[in-house]
Amino acid sequence: MKINGIAYRSIWPVARNGTRAVAIIDQTRLPFEFATVDLTSLAALIEAIVSMRLRGAPLIGVAAAYGIALAMQSDASDHALDTAYRELSASRPTAINLRWALDRQRELLAPATPGDRASLAWHEADRLADEDVALNRAIGTHGARLIADTHARSGRAVNVLTHCNTGWIATVDYGTALSAIYQAHDAGTPVHVWVDETRPRNQGLLTAWELAAHGVPHTLIVDNAGGHLMQKGCVDLVLVGADRVSARGDVCNKIGTYLKALAARDCGVPFYAAVPSPTIDWTISDALREIPIEDRSAAEVRNVRGRTDQGVATVEIAGAATRVANPAFDVTPAQLVTGIITERGIATPAQLARQFPEQRNAA
Amino acid sequence: MKINGIAYRSIWPVARNGTRAVAIIDQTRLPFEFATVDLTSLAALIEAIVSMRLRGAPLIGVAAAYGIALAMQSDASDHALDTAYRELSASRPTAINLRWALDRQRELLAPATPGDRASLAWHEADRLADEDVALNRAIGTHGARLIADTHARSGRAVNVLTHCNTGWIATVDYGTALSAIYQAHDAGTPVHVWVDETRPRNQGLLTAWELAAHGVPHTLIVDNAGGHLMQKGCVDLVLVGADRVSARGDVCNKIGTYLKALAARDCGVPFYAAVPSPTIDWTISDALREIPIEDRSAAEVRNVRGRTDQGVATVEIAGAATRVANPAFDVTPAQLVTGIITERGIATPAQLARQFPEQRNAA
Repeated sequence: MKINGIAYRSIWPVARNGTRAVAIIDQTRLPFEFATVDLTSLAALIEAIVSMRLRGAPLIGVAAAYGIALAMQSDASDHALDTAYRELSASRPTAINLRWALDRQRELLAPATPGDRASLAWHEADRLADEDVALNRAIGTHGARLIADTHARSGRAVNVLTHCNTGWIATVDYGTALSAIYQAHDAGTPVHVWVDETRPRNQGLLTAWELAAHGVPHTLIVDNAGGHLMQKGCVDLVLVGADRVSARGDVCNKIGTYLKALAARDCGVPFYAAVPSPTIDWTISDALREIPIEDRSAAEVRNVRGRTDQGVATVEIAGAATRVANPAFDVTPAQLVTGIITERGIATPAQLARQFPEQRNAA
Repeated sequence: MKINGIAYRSIWPVARNGTRAVAIIDQTRLPFEFATVDLTSLAALIEAIVSMRLRGAPLIGVAAAYGIALAMQSDASDHALDTAYRELSASRPTAINLRWALDRQRELLAPATPGDRASLAWHEADRLADEDVALNRAIGTHGARLIADTHARSGRAVNVLTHCNTGWIATVDYGTALSAIYQAHDAGTPVHVWVDETRPRNQGLLTAWELAAHGVPHTLIVDNAGGHLMQKGCVDLVLVGADRVSARGDVCNKIGTYLKALAARDCGVPFYAAVPSPTIDWTISDALREIPIEDRSAAEVRNVRGRTDQGVATVEIAGAATRVANPAFDVTPAQLVTGIITERGIATPAQLARQFPEQRNAA
């Protein structure tokens, strides 16, 4: 994606003082400020994941692969590999892409001699980044066809409701659900997006920022509004991403997704999740019981960031005396899911495993 | 309710410069600042309703009655009465208590001679205020029994999820749903409240402020979180207020209520609305089709108020270039409603009309 005419990915390797580092766009400062940061150590990369300078399940996966490379660059021992794997795994417990990318790195590096590990790891991370771009482009192609089909049936602009940010900055490039929207828009299908604000972190503002930059018509709404809009016939499709999808098609995604899926079913609106296959966890079936839901800091609920006349500032809406709970994800059971859009096409939850026959042996 | 040891209602008549005026607590400044305002004219009172210095369906009803009194005090003509009725009616289109109170005033004043109207109107407004207090106390008694019964069955603290603010400041005193919680707490039933933040106006912060003052255990959550909490068995009851209830028991309430009702049904959690009978609109049946939903200012979504080191401030989370929609209410269809708690007891939607037999003739 281009920002002010310059093509960016959301993560890329850079050379700094004779060694390699990783550059990212600091997403905690978006959409108010655009800034890139160099991450020169495993610790810095983990901090960026935990604090959500980096976010989005696909991007976190690729970032973790680069984290292994950063670790190997400073210490390529077996112990350092184990430590990096463990610390990166623990940085965000819900998204599965992270573990998937770490497993890929470990399988490659464990049998290698320490002297080869750093260069192998950098190469593999670059490959995972390129793979992510290709997967997301394919997801977008399938999703754009779904949007075009909806338009062909209704003859009017397709109203898509989305939750959280599934855009190019949540991946290495293109995005997942937004990849479909971008490609539909680029192909001339009239599309309008209802953008859920997505409290507490307000990732909807990132979505609005992306859509505005790409010229896609959109309207920001509070998370409470989507059900009413569906009741009133103002939504044709709900299209979200996911942090983990179970083998049977349960969708674990940003907190609040489940509420939109319930409204979609009640109002007869199709509900789709767009995910690259590394987001599917073939080892679990019942996501509600099996996926750990990350509880994040109360400060995310208490504090809201925005612009003032004096620049960017944070206001505290609830003081330290107010107890706060902040579960970050929820699970939409497969029976509420119309389809899962992956790089291989669109599948109902029941068809999903058949679309990935090679996983039957793996699981 | 007491604030710093002083007993307050949320609205009360005062004498100012030889005439009467109405004093209120300015709810746009809560919970960050506590300030009262004198409203000395119909225009000032309407501004207070529109800007939500005054809010909550029951309180708006009583305020409208005082608005008629303020109008009659300056001009008691038929024309002035009609104008005041019309302008107050239009100030908030969704809450029905407003029209109910205005009808009460007009029925009383229209046949009276202009010379008597001001004093009749003040007297009637005072009476409506006292009635509201009595209704809410009765609602709380019935609701507290429901909470106590839930506790008796489970043997542990009752987890109630609530949306928006239904406390004493949303009424003249006591509150509706919160009246039940206060009375349960005062009677020794262990109760904990999940407080929905309630974007865009964050009335959940008012609820947290009230509950903290009364010593009721509570936890603030974002509006997205309630479904997940219900899936995980952390909610025993959903208890909300309403801006209008249809004759068949559809509940029109603050935007986002419908999403919580859907989750409650999906998770087997009972869903109750606590309302004084003036909130029931016996003239309509299908709320989704018949109740006008107020669209409010985009600024409510764009701007968030809170504390900073320098005092209370507002940050803009989305600029003027971002299109925003802000529907303020939604409708929870009767089939999702376990019961309606009124001053006469608890009724299923199907039983509601039977609990008010006198309305069968009126409708």
